[in-house]
Amino acid sequence: MEKRIAILATNGFEESELNSPLEALKNEGFEVDVVSLSKENIRSWTDGNWGESFKVDKTLDQISAKDYNALVLPGGVINPDLLRVEERALIFIRDFFKQSKPVAAICHAAWSLISAEVVDGRTMTSYPSIRKDLENAGALWIDKEVVVDEALVTSRNPGDLKAFNAKLIEEIKEGKHEYQTA
Amino acid sequence: MEKRIAILATNGFEESELNSPLEALKNEGFEVDVVSLSKENIRSWTDGNWGESFKVDKTLDQISAKDYNALVLPGGVINPDLLRVEERALIFIRDFFKQSKPVAAICHAAWSLISAEVVDGRTMTSYPSIRKDLENAGALWIDKEVVVDEALVTSRNPGDLKAFNAKLIEEIKEGKHEYQTA
Repeated sequence: MEKRIAILATNGFEESELNSPLEALKNEGFEVDVVSLSKENIRSWTDGNWGESFKVDKTLDQISAKDYNALVLPGGVINPDLLRVEERALIFIRDFFKQSKPVAAICHAAWSLISAEVVDGRTMTSYPSIRKDLENAGALWIDKEVVVDEALVTSRNPGDLKAFNAKLIEEIKEGKHEYQTA
Repeated sequence: MEKRIAILATNGFEESELNSPLEALKNEGFEVDVVSLSKENIRSWTDGNWGESFKVDKTLDQISAKDYNALVLPGGVINPDLLRVEERALIFIRDFFKQSKPVAAICHAAWSLISAEVVDGRTMTSYPSIRKDLENAGALWIDKEVVVDEALVTSRNPGDLKAFNAKLIEEIKEGKHEYQTA
């Protein structure tokens, strides 16, 4: 059966953290949708500045977690800061946990997981600046290129993308995990 | 006696959140130093993009909290994300609390206070995206243009600057607060 993966992002996502998983997932033959808050193109962040504009495939109003097998959350500092105040985005994220589907978050993306209230008791990594926020939210934080805790895949920064993509794909192939919940 | 105030910032500070308190404090006749991690000029963030470069008066290596009567922390998304991973910055911030001196933080600046571990039990406001991070760190978060809790002055965004500056100046004039501690 065809696998379909959602990448949720808005303006200020770290470019490589969207492009690299997108390419790796397509190479596996998966369908991938870039999902955002509205139809407008979203601008990446790269080398410390605004980068290119990217096309949005689906808006949150058009789809729901049941349409997808897994969720990928790119980082960037600005992108999760904008997403985490949007209740629609938090519901979408939380539904993947409720449906026991793989979720992969890199860099600052775990901020959105904090606001979705799905990190308590989970073992994770992230960009180091948000370590304290994750620990205060109940996560066990470890410094490792990729951490897999029952279908929750997390990495620290773009340098970890190879390991991040490999584990993400492994989890998608495994399918649902009964311990991934919300 | 002359009052001297530190404004701690690095690249990506919201321009108005440094300029407006700086001007208000100087108008009161206070001495104000822009303090940063290194001597290099720091770049502001304004209207959703990088703005002008600002001169740094003192580096953290040159000064300590005992040289100042109060501390101001401008926001911006990028600025506190860079500061909060610098142990020197966290020690500097924490020392103002230990010395019972006023601290004022606006917008996303409270992230630095979370990493300095000084928000547990405090009543505060902030930019709404970091509300959850503050609550998880033990703060009582309220939605108000300015919140004053025993020499800790917090506001939500640049629209609150008038009220923020007024309370900041009031607290500086009052001097030390025995309940402000770390």
